[in-house]
Amino acid sequence: MNKEPLRQEGKLMWQLIERLWPICRSITGNGLRETLNIIKEHIPVEISEVPSGTKVLDWTVPREWNINDAYILDESGKKIIDFRENNLHVVGYSVPVNEWLELDELQKHLHSLEKQPDAIPYVTSYYREYWGFCLSHKLRASLKPGKYFVHIDSAHTNGSLTYGEYIIKGASEKEIFLSAYVCHPSMASNELSGPVVLTMLAKWLASEKRKYTYRIVFIPETIGSLTYLSKHYKELKEKVIAGFNISCVGDNNNYSYVQSRYGNTFADKMIRRVLDSDYPGYKKFSFLERGSDERQYCSPGIDLPLVVVCRTKYEEYPEYHTSLDNLSYICEEGLTGALELLRKVILLIEEGRYYRIKTLGEPQLGKRNLYPVLSTKTSVASVKRMMNFIAYADGRNDIEEISKITGIPTEEILSYAELLKKEGLLEETGIIQVE
Amino acid sequence: MNKEPLRQEGKLMWQLIERLWPICRSITGNGLRETLNIIKEHIPVEISEVPSGTKVLDWTVPREWNINDAYILDESGKKIIDFRENNLHVVGYSVPVNEWLELDELQKHLHSLEKQPDAIPYVTSYYREYWGFCLSHKLRASLKPGKYFVHIDSAHTNGSLTYGEYIIKGASEKEIFLSAYVCHPSMASNELSGPVVLTMLAKWLASEKRKYTYRIVFIPETIGSLTYLSKHYKELKEKVIAGFNISCVGDNNNYSYVQSRYGNTFADKMIRRVLDSDYPGYKKFSFLERGSDERQYCSPGIDLPLVVVCRTKYEEYPEYHTSLDNLSYICEEGLTGALELLRKVILLIEEGRYYRIKTLGEPQLGKRNLYPVLSTKTSVASVKRMMNFIAYADGRNDIEEISKITGIPTEEILSYAELLKKEGLLEETGIIQVE
Amino acid sequence: MNKEPLRQEGKLMWQLIERLWPICRSITGNGLRETLNIIKEHIPVEISEVPSGTKVLDWTVPREWNINDAYILDESGKKIIDFRENNLHVVGYSVPVNEWLELDELQKHLHSLEKQPDAIPYVTSYYREYWGFCLSHKLRASLKPGKYFVHIDSAHTNGSLTYGEYIIKGASEKEIFLSAYVCHPSMASNELSGPVVLTMLAKWLASEKRKYTYRIVFIPETIGSLTYLSKHYKELKEKVIAGFNISCVGDNNNYSYVQSRYGNTFADKMIRRVLDSDYPGYKKFSFLERGSDERQYCSPGIDLPLVVVCRTKYEEYPEYHTSLDNLSYICEEGLTGALELLRKVILLIEEGRYYRIKTLGEPQLGKRNLYPVLSTKTSVASVKRMMNFIAYADGRNDIEEISKITGIPTEEILSYAELLKKEGLLEETGIIQVE
Repeated sequence: MNKEPLRQEGKLMWQLIERLWPICRSITGNGLRETLNIIKEHIPVEISEVPSGTKVLDWTVPREWNINDAYILDESGKKIIDFRENNLHVVGYSVPVNEWLELDELQKHLHSLEKQPDAIPYVTSYYREYWGFCLSHKLRASLKPGKYFVHIDSAHTNGSLTYGEYIIKGASEKEIFLSAYVCHPSMASNELSGPVVLTMLAKWLASEKRKYTYRIVFIPETIGSLTYLSKHYKELKEKVIAGFNISCVGDNNNYSYVQSRYGNTFADKMIRRVLDSDYPGYKKFSFLERGSDERQYCSPGIDLPLVVVCRTKYEEYPEYHTSLDNLSYICEEGLTGALELLRKVILLIEEGRYYRIKTLGEPQLGKRNLYPVLSTKTSVASVKRMMNFIAYADGRNDIEEISKITGIPTEEILSYAELLKKEGLLEETGIIQVE
Repeated sequence: MNKEPLRQEGKLMWQLIERLWPICRSITGNGLRETLNIIKEHIPVEISEVPSGTKVLDWTVPREWNINDAYILDESGKKIIDFRENNLHVVGYSVPVNEWLELDELQKHLHSLEKQPDAIPYVTSYYREYWGFCLSHKLRASLKPGKYFVHIDSAHTNGSLTYGEYIIKGASEKEIFLSAYVCHPSMASNELSGPVVLTMLAKWLASEKRKYTYRIVFIPETIGSLTYLSKHYKELKEKVIAGFNISCVGDNNNYSYVQSRYGNTFADKMIRRVLDSDYPGYKKFSFLERGSDERQYCSPGIDLPLVVVCRTKYEEYPEYHTSLDNLSYICEEGLTGALELLRKVILLIEEGRYYRIKTLGEPQLGKRNLYPVLSTKTSVASVKRMMNFIAYADGRNDIEEISKITGIPTEEILSYAELLKKEGLLEETGIIQVE
Repeated sequence: MNKEPLRQEGKLMWQLIERLWPICRSITGNGLRETLNIIKEHIPVEISEVPSGTKVLDWTVPREWNINDAYILDESGKKIIDFRENNLHVVGYSVPVNEWLELDELQKHLHSLEKQPDAIPYVTSYYREYWGFCLSHKLRASLKPGKYFVHIDSAHTNGSLTYGEYIIKGASEKEIFLSAYVCHPSMASNELSGPVVLTMLAKWLASEKRKYTYRIVFIPETIGSLTYLSKHYKELKEKVIAGFNISCVGDNNNYSYVQSRYGNTFADKMIRRVLDSDYPGYKKFSFLERGSDERQYCSPGIDLPLVVVCRTKYEEYPEYHTSLDNLSYICEEGLTGALELLRKVILLIEEGRYYRIKTLGEPQLGKRNLYPVLSTKTSVASVKRMMNFIAYADGRNDIEEISKITGIPTEEILSYAELLKKEGLLEETGIIQVE
């Protein structure tokens, strides 16, 4: 692979990240909307709005939440916490508040991490009315008894949940499903790395004709995937042959992947092939260690053949869900590497074709000038390899499997396949039948 | 388990055994009838009579056999063998006889065991006309040449074969099938232990609502199970998910079980789970070493998923089929232990439920107050276990299997299941589909 | 096995080989026709003629080729190469030629083997117009510059392709398929050994009533099997349970066999049983090393359950496809051994019956006098073995498998089977269901 375009893409991704970084996203609201509109500048994402109160499977789309400002003043009127400095300072979905409190009372609404005294934790309260502030344990420890003025200028309104969808039609109706979430405020690996890599991947996917159709979604985690599934799960169950949830791909450590529920889908098989061959030392997590939208995509009855692609997985790094998961936790190389890995998996699927020889009995190579004129000891041997490919081109094996059975390198198989297709002797059986 | 009720049941079983002991049972006749009527005093067995001559599969119900008396007198008129002392003395189904014979002639009708000189063997001749006496080899050796008077006051009549059936309806039409035989004269482990333990088990089964229906039969061995199958095998094949033939459970040695024909039924799986966990050192016999009604229940075309539960298995102890298999060979502890084992297996099946989560996508725990209010690092972790149960509550795995996959103890799974069922989120898929 | 008849058959086979040896066969023409007519003197082969130009699957039956004479004269008029001395001298399907050439020009039409300087190679050009001569490298090296007169008196005409077919009806419509090729000029193991052994095998098959139907074909390689398949493949797919292509069985080395495409057919299983038990050290080749009509018979969509039986396999011996594969390369013992092996495989299939007990529940042995009169400890044990056979006579296992499960020798099983069949209790399920 020529590394230069990749470096270019790395820069673009970094610029996009820097632009998306300050936005205060949540599972609904203008931050999410703004994020999707910025992505739309790069790829033609169709943005949908699903009204608050809509039933989505077992859930209900919550009221839309927006926030203008929030802070805490000490008795002297000094802003000791300012939402505008770091949007993690406010508990997500906090109700408005505007009052003086004693420190004791305030403490009930404060969140910090004793063991990470410099980190502001990320806390939300989507489904129960509450307000709160998050701060470093250091700062919290320094608070003196007295009165504090708390101000949150937020609103819960009958609005909508916003998500983005981009479908890139391929030759086949069968789909590869790609998902990333866009609902966290300023966090880097566990938020921006996913949608940014997926944006760049989508651009690349759209740049050429593809065999499969690609369905790409940018959604708020959990309620977003549930919303999307509630509208599309029947279609997805019918069409999706492999799915990938992209999450936490911004650092520069080795990859990890979270298996599907039984670890036996086509997506598992394909990503394992790539990781096994090119990324020794990668980590494979059981579905028991899931945590993102695979919880919905792979749930009983939905059962999409989907895995999660990560570098250091959510919950596996101390910076996770704190202010330390910031732009210095991630790097351009991390993002471009993840982009490269995903392309490899997609190319494997795109190229992993299933062939079926169209003749009954061996085809006659001679009349098509595919056979040496003279049948001698050595000339017979020379077409054997192609004939071996043909013998296993029975629609049951993909090229890798044929290669394993016959010992013929896949490139050589591909060249035979081209030759035979040109002669009308071989058909691609079109679509992988997911096992 | 509270041992006191079990001790009570042990006493009851022993009393029942003492009462049934003297009765001269056979595969038909009044001894069998009387036995079933005594059992009926404890559980509401429905007693059926199938007329002699009825075709039952490849067999025919034989004429009914009854016997009043039998003895051998020596020349001096002394009773040297008396049926009233031990009903094993007469070959089962002996035709009547009343004549003086020389010892030579008599010898052709005598049966003893040279290697067990004190034991009276158990011999029958159901399907060929014959008369004979069984005696200890010691006694036989002492017989002096001379005349002997043999008397058997028996009768073969057009009567019927008697069997008992007790169906305890459960919530499901699917059945657990339990069988014991009642066709041997005074023998203890290889006769009375089975029906007596099964009687007490039936009482216990009827004492509570059960999920499955229990079909309990008390039948004469072979011809009885054939008779029962000839009337019911289609129904049994449809309904029975697990069956247990109870035999030789009176001694106090470790358990053994005889596998089904291919050792792969749900009954095999369940009894193995109990034996593996609670009875290390138990013996597993191949179907090649079968010998009781499993011969019919598991025969080709019938194929019930049934195993045999024994302590020391028939044919495996020297007292078997002799007068030494008597009340001093068995003990109360042996019987109560077997009762306990069978209850464990049944509880395992009753409790081994298959769950299916009713939502598509994860259920929303928050609106049901099943979720911690605040989404923080630690609170998220705390519901993971329940969510892991939910992820595998897909109707494919029973609790034990879910426990194995998720590492969650079964008690904990059960508590989640209760919680989720209360919320209407989880359904039991009702019936185990036998593999 | 009595060796004397085998020795007789060996002599007959040798005589037949000597008679067929000088004939110049090709994939069409009078040599092939003459060969089939000689075989017809031994077995009633039905000879078919398929016109040139007939479409057969992806192929077309070529024009018929016949040759009367061919030679090369040197400048002095001396015959340096004479087709009448060895029919390998002419490239198969050579067009006629009759002209003086310079040695340079002639060289383009000569074929020899540098590494086997004494051997005349076997070369053909069926599907492209060409003429050529084959000669030893020694002779070729001795040719001096100058003019040479080349003469080939051959003709390509609208004639037909000839093949022979012999169907021996058995009790069942299910078939064993046997194939050998008859298209090579004077070569011994890789030509005559196959049809000659198959002729003798057919005689033996026809000498007794058989359970299966035998379909025996003598065909020119590749185009012949394609022709035969184009007419019969649907029927073959329906009826054939095992097939054997017989090739290169004339030497006296150990056997080899070429597996079917996935190595898992009934034919693979049966020949492996025989080879494993009686021919340790035999060679098993993957389908990748195929080379004869199995290429067509096992091709995707045709998928006959067929293997190739060889001694030293084609392509595995230096004499292969040269004048050194002659009568001194093979021997009578080689041929008779192959005949014996094939008979063993066929007897295994013929005798490898699948039984099904006809009763539901155990059959009543007593009423058929199959059971000892008295039920005693020892008499019960004596019928257990037969009952164990019955227990697994469920149509799923053949005798060998039952023997493995029960530990009863197959001869003993056969005797039980006979007994039970006589009583109408057991049926042969007729036909093996190929897995």
